[in-house]
Amino acid sequence: MKYKISDLITLLGCEVKGDLSLEYISGLAPFFQAKEDSLTFASDEKFLKSLNETKAKVIIVPDIKVFPNIGKMFLVVKENPRTLMPKLLGFFKKKVKPFEKQIEDSSKIGKNVSIAPGVYIGHDCVIGDNVTLYPNVTICEGVEIGEGTVIYPNVTVREFCKVGKNCVIQPGAVIGSDGFGFVKVNGKNTKIDQIGRAVVGNNVEIGANTTVDRGAIGDTVIEDYTKIDNLVQIAHNVILGENCLIVSQVGIAGSAEVGDNTTIAGQTGVAGHLKIGKNVVIGAKSGVSGDVADNQLLSGYPLMDHREDLKVRVSMKKLPELLKKVRNLEKKLLDK
Amino acid sequence: MKYKISDLITLLGCEVKGDLSLEYISGLAPFFQAKEDSLTFASDEKFLKSLNETKAKVIIVPDIKVFPNIGKMFLVVKENPRTLMPKLLGFFKKKVKPFEKQIEDSSKIGKNVSIAPGVYIGHDCVIGDNVTLYPNVTICEGVEIGEGTVIYPNVTVREFCKVGKNCVIQPGAVIGSDGFGFVKVNGKNTKIDQIGRAVVGNNVEIGANTTVDRGAIGDTVIEDYTKIDNLVQIAHNVILGENCLIVSQVGIAGSAEVGDNTTIAGQTGVAGHLKIGKNVVIGAKSGVSGDVADNQLLSGYPLMDHREDLKVRVSMKKLPELLKKVRNLEKKLLDK
Amino acid sequence: MKYKISDLITLLGCEVKGDLSLEYISGLAPFFQAKEDSLTFASDEKFLKSLNETKAKVIIVPDIKVFPNIGKMFLVVKENPRTLMPKLLGFFKKKVKPFEKQIEDSSKIGKNVSIAPGVYIGHDCVIGDNVTLYPNVTICEGVEIGEGTVIYPNVTVREFCKVGKNCVIQPGAVIGSDGFGFVKVNGKNTKIDQIGRAVVGNNVEIGANTTVDRGAIGDTVIEDYTKIDNLVQIAHNVILGENCLIVSQVGIAGSAEVGDNTTIAGQTGVAGHLKIGKNVVIGAKSGVSGDVADNQLLSGYPLMDHREDLKVRVSMKKLPELLKKVRNLEKKLLDK
Repeated sequence: MKYKISDLITLLGCEVKGDLSLEYISGLAPFFQAKEDSLTFASDEKFLKSLNETKAKVIIVPDIKVFPNIGKMFLVVKENPRTLMPKLLGFFKKKVKPFEKQIEDSSKIGKNVSIAPGVYIGHDCVIGDNVTLYPNVTICEGVEIGEGTVIYPNVTVREFCKVGKNCVIQPGAVIGSDGFGFVKVNGKNTKIDQIGRAVVGNNVEIGANTTVDRGAIGDTVIEDYTKIDNLVQIAHNVILGENCLIVSQVGIAGSAEVGDNTTIAGQTGVAGHLKIGKNVVIGAKSGVSGDVADNQLLSGYPLMDHREDLKVRVSMKKLPELLKKVRNLEKKLLDK
Repeated sequence: MKYKISDLITLLGCEVKGDLSLEYISGLAPFFQAKEDSLTFASDEKFLKSLNETKAKVIIVPDIKVFPNIGKMFLVVKENPRTLMPKLLGFFKKKVKPFEKQIEDSSKIGKNVSIAPGVYIGHDCVIGDNVTLYPNVTICEGVEIGEGTVIYPNVTVREFCKVGKNCVIQPGAVIGSDGFGFVKVNGKNTKIDQIGRAVVGNNVEIGANTTVDRGAIGDTVIEDYTKIDNLVQIAHNVILGENCLIVSQVGIAGSAEVGDNTTIAGQTGVAGHLKIGKNVVIGAKSGVSGDVADNQLLSGYPLMDHREDLKVRVSMKKLPELLKKVRNLEKKLLDK
Repeated sequence: MKYKISDLITLLGCEVKGDLSLEYISGLAPFFQAKEDSLTFASDEKFLKSLNETKAKVIIVPDIKVFPNIGKMFLVVKENPRTLMPKLLGFFKKKVKPFEKQIEDSSKIGKNVSIAPGVYIGHDCVIGDNVTLYPNVTICEGVEIGEGTVIYPNVTVREFCKVGKNCVIQPGAVIGSDGFGFVKVNGKNTKIDQIGRAVVGNNVEIGANTTVDRGAIGDTVIEDYTKIDNLVQIAHNVILGENCLIVSQVGIAGSAEVGDNTTIAGQTGVAGHLKIGKNVVIGAKSGVSGDVADNQLLSGYPLMDHREDLKVRVSMKKLPELLKKVRNLEKKLLDK
């Protein structure tokens, strides 16, 4: 893709500073993942201090007065760049083609693919050899499905997402739903288009009615051999490493990263923007609200060493009794 | 609609007291929401004490011996009115028409509506202009969809529900499933037909595989600009105010009310029949079991001030140590 | 079905001991549920000590050196029998027939069945009289649906499962998804085919987007009159008794058993391989990690008497204050 920078300048009503020679960008990308021809944006101090650490040559910034001479074009906006997000992502959102028929003509279907009644395959999809698509599966425009993958009934794979080889997607799972991204514009919750993808590796299993959101900008990624149980929520821009086990009803919030070979047991919640290491086991019903180092067995909310958590839980039962004891102790001490 | 009161009397086998002049009712309604021509029922003391506070002219009551002369017709039942619910709601449940074709002839489709393969649109539906219906969406009988709304694949909107303008319904979401309403009849769980609707306002987003139950009697309501994440449960007769954010895997039980501009973070549970105020923020994994006033930041289970909850959580880790300390203190005091 | 034991011996590369006269088995079954002509396996001490307590005449075992002379054939494997599971269950997994048309010819449809557009009915299905199948329902091969059952849109019932009479399956529910069964083979999570079924009794209700996994070996069972709310997870080989109420977002892990007339409130998690008795009520957001006797009202995590749990929760709020008090007490005692 190729977008005219002048169109963007008109849309955002911004001033231009720095290197003015560029005319086109290839798209929008997160600060540290951007390529030379990407546009990115720097809203917080964290990014503004590191303007030479992004490869992007075009950066949206607030008015920072002094623009470093580092061969970059700065698009200077007056509002908080966050408020511009709906406009900005709307600009980069790919237009989709109209629905025409059950299996759109431009889709490429491999050899020995089994397509059941009620399956829809969108424009420009690529379906690998030996794929099985059960009834009422919907594969939206531009999706790639790797060879040997089995997709059970009523699954949705949304636009431009990618599922690897030899995956199993259980019934009702959703891959590529929009992430939960909103900002207040004039006080009202306003949608930020989610222009990234969900990218699922090889030999991945995704459970029944599990939801995997697409990335806001950049992708949500599930790596090879990771197995996800039923009714799990994987939010936008989560990175799940290889060979993980994510048990039923776990929720992983936006931009969290989970290392290889990690297991997260049922009903645990993982907060956004944190990192869980490799070879970690997190017990059921836990709450993860900070980074977790490699090779640990943890549980609880707050999260702690699993044996410690067991002790805390046993202790909790004694709490009403403990309150009484302390009252008695206080009384005795006062009596003296 | 118009129902003969005499048919109802035969069905319930009830006595009639008070004003006997009425012949028809328009339907069944909750006590305080009833209109003049509604039927309602008063089972508990709370309602029996306030018989003149409902607008309904016809009221089902247990045998209260003295019937106030307030221009109302009383249908006097011998059993607990709760046990009659399956019969009563069965009586008022609208019959649906048989499936005939993919897009039923009596449905009204606006201009520039995009209808993908596999979409079903039931009898008497009204689909607004510029609506997009992705593949394998099912719109049941009598549903209204406002203009500009986008409904992603494999979504179900059940009978007689309403979705406003410019909404986005992510894949697999369910709007208007039956609420979880059962009573024991001869010891067996027996279904109470759910005759209300789910009514979704304008500019609402509903996440992937989220479920919004229809009302038992009266409606489940989601007001304008409220955004709901994936895998959220909204039970029957919940009222969600305007401009709320309900994060993934939250569950809101029956008849709970949530005020405008309130945010409920992931995996929180809200008990039934309570009120959460406006501008409230409730942290992740909390349990809400009582009313919540406006303008608060709360978390935990039990729910408390968020800073207090953080302190409690830190303290929990010290609990096993605390038990030891208190044992030592007791010993020292005894030793003296 | 009939499987040649010699094929199995070749597949597993195992030695044979004990009674060598048998040639065929009917299938694979759990140790205590096996029939005379079943194959079963004994990996743990627990089973190896009780080899004469299974009815199965053919048993897969590790090399136990001394093979009791009890009229059984022993298939002796060198690896841990668990590692063999993917091979073993793959051997017994039934092959499914190719998709041919919307309603496959070999399916038997009862009288007065309502089949909406977009419904798929697989080979060899049996659909009872007066069943209603809403749009985009998928009934996979070999499924039986009892008379009078209503199945709402976008529901999936997977291969060989059984749903009883007069059930109601809300939209998007999944019955018979694969259980979450994996073993590490060369360090990689490797799927164990799930060859059991999900078997749903009569008068059962299953909520919107709820998932009921099929058994690994043997069946997942939901008995008569049990009602399950939305977004509930029922894992492989769970046995849910009669007349239970399972509220929204509950998760019940593999092989747990729940007795008759038991209620489990919202967002509770039940660990695997445990037994909950009859007439039990478990409060919302609880964690059940051990067996539960009959006739109890429990809640909390850890699970305890419900009144005790309420006291513990109230006490938790006082914990930061309590820590201070104990520090003060210690100080006072030291000062003396």
